[in-house]
Amino acid sequence: MSALAYVSRCISLAAAALLLFAVSVLAQTDPLPSWNDTAPKAAIIAFVEKVTKENSPEFVPEPERIAVFDNDGTLWVEHPIYTQLAFALDRVKAVVPAHPELKDKQPFKAVLEGDMKALAASGEKGLMEIMMATHAGMTTDEFQKIVSDWISTARHPRFKRPYTELVYQPMLELQTYLRANGFKTYIVSGGGIEFMRPWTERVYGIPPEQVIGSSIKTEFRMSADTPILYRLPEINFIDDKAGKPVGINQYIGRRPLAAFGNSDGDLEMLQWTTLAGAPARFGLIVHHTDAEREYAYDRDTEFGRLDKALDLAPMNGWTVVDMKADWRKIFPD
Amino acid sequence: MSALAYVSRCISLAAAALLLFAVSVLAQTDPLPSWNDTAPKAAIIAFVEKVTKENSPEFVPEPERIAVFDNDGTLWVEHPIYTQLAFALDRVKAVVPAHPELKDKQPFKAVLEGDMKALAASGEKGLMEIMMATHAGMTTDEFQKIVSDWISTARHPRFKRPYTELVYQPMLELQTYLRANGFKTYIVSGGGIEFMRPWTERVYGIPPEQVIGSSIKTEFRMSADTPILYRLPEINFIDDKAGKPVGINQYIGRRPLAAFGNSDGDLEMLQWTTLAGAPARFGLIVHHTDAEREYAYDRDTEFGRLDKALDLAPMNGWTVVDMKADWRKIFPD
Repeated sequence: MSALAYVSRCISLAAAALLLFAVSVLAQTDPLPSWNDTAPKAAIIAFVEKVTKENSPEFVPEPERIAVFDNDGTLWVEHPIYTQLAFALDRVKAVVPAHPELKDKQPFKAVLEGDMKALAASGEKGLMEIMMATHAGMTTDEFQKIVSDWISTARHPRFKRPYTELVYQPMLELQTYLRANGFKTYIVSGGGIEFMRPWTERVYGIPPEQVIGSSIKTEFRMSADTPILYRLPEINFIDDKAGKPVGINQYIGRRPLAAFGNSDGDLEMLQWTTLAGAPARFGLIVHHTDAEREYAYDRDTEFGRLDKALDLAPMNGWTVVDMKADWRKIFPD
Repeated sequence: MSALAYVSRCISLAAAALLLFAVSVLAQTDPLPSWNDTAPKAAIIAFVEKVTKENSPEFVPEPERIAVFDNDGTLWVEHPIYTQLAFALDRVKAVVPAHPELKDKQPFKAVLEGDMKALAASGEKGLMEIMMATHAGMTTDEFQKIVSDWISTARHPRFKRPYTELVYQPMLELQTYLRANGFKTYIVSGGGIEFMRPWTERVYGIPPEQVIGSSIKTEFRMSADTPILYRLPEINFIDDKAGKPVGINQYIGRRPLAAFGNSDGDLEMLQWTTLAGAPARFGLIVHHTDAEREYAYDRDTEFGRLDKALDLAPMNGWTVVDMKADWRKIFPD
């Protein structure tokens, strides 16, 4: 046997051994161990197999396998308040000393005094003032550091754990499973894009360039010889409701193959993703039904935001996850 | 020898053989054959080796290897007019029959009559009217089809070839070389994002989600049961000059490692990319010096747009490509 033939046979044998090993590992490993063996898990696996098997009539090439995930309530806890709002309220306390004129002004006074009723009374306008006072007026690098520092120390009031540990283990597994099947996973959130980017790669395995969110305007400046982007107190884009398909088109330029949400803020994203005809698409809604392990809410609760999308789910073929029944586990250990 | 030991030895031998083969192929193959062996080629290769060699003090992990390319004049011909303007002028002729009220109105009359002097006299305002009349008022899917159809049939007036063949072979090789070294390549163009996305993957190997450009606003609508994005006659974002760093931050959320441009429209992108301190960065300007094979222009020509960036290049360490001297070949065969 020539040296070349020997090497070539070795390669074949080695490849065969590796293939056998890979097949047996795959057969033994459940890609979604935190999902109960109920309908949603079966639907996810059936969809992924349908679009990834080469000989399937609904096969989709890898570059077109785009999956979009809402963040708040879909990938991590959004109760009792959005994490970004908890961040903003903490930041009010941090920035007021440098701006004493805010101390006696609403809604800042309400935040400093913990007067949630007065805060609520300040409405959307008050909220926007808080967001601008805490999210603008610094460079993008400075804001990134502020977010990174806060997220590494802040704790959720009920679970007493960092917010980045209050992500849903079944959704982490789902993202890993999709990526292992050639999907590119994106976040498409109403939350601030620069509030998410500092930690999404570490927590979800989603790099900054695959995070889409709401944003304020930034301005390029040369500060002495150093280029900076300065964050201005002005809305650039709201990535919520009908803004989600707009954001998806703007950032990705392709229609996703699968969309995952939990509220009416995700309705248009689910419609845009799933109602376009061939190839097959997948839509899923996380329904918060587990007051014991997490929270239970939809239409009529104080935080009710899942209404129309839930009604439209059966007609549109969207999978609805009953958190209590379908998830074996909620958070990572 | 046990079966396992045998397989394991085979894998090692096969791996060694493959490695030897790969090394010898690499040593024999010039990754940039259309570049002359002048300073720019050496600078590119030295930079890539510096940031990709594991033991280099300036090693950069793969996810952070982002390279941004201007399009017009950097990746393809921009003379005698921007390709997108040629598209818009052709589209005026296509849309006027359905809008006869435009026929006798400037700047449309000038376009229909080929009166370039009257067209120029209509200025920025006239140009914007032409862009909106030809780029808005349809769905994103419809616009994509219009662009795809046009780009497959239109021909450049001087070279009589499709515009997508008038891309610079040295830059195609550069993009391939960067990608082979773990870089993610992006387009960051003042041109329309939806004008580029239909063909960048085929022509440059750059997928839609890695194209950043100027855009008009879109609106999500349910048209009967079908979701659409409708293109509105309103500017959303101008991805030029100081807008380029803003666009890069908005879409990518990381500072690039390398930037490639050809005009003052790329100045701020070059500054943002290269003047931020460690790790090492790379900036390059394509200087059009070859009237015979392509065009020669910079400051003082009718199309002069390369002025301040050229002056700042030496101080900032930007590599300037002298197209005539540094490029062996301009276009693909």
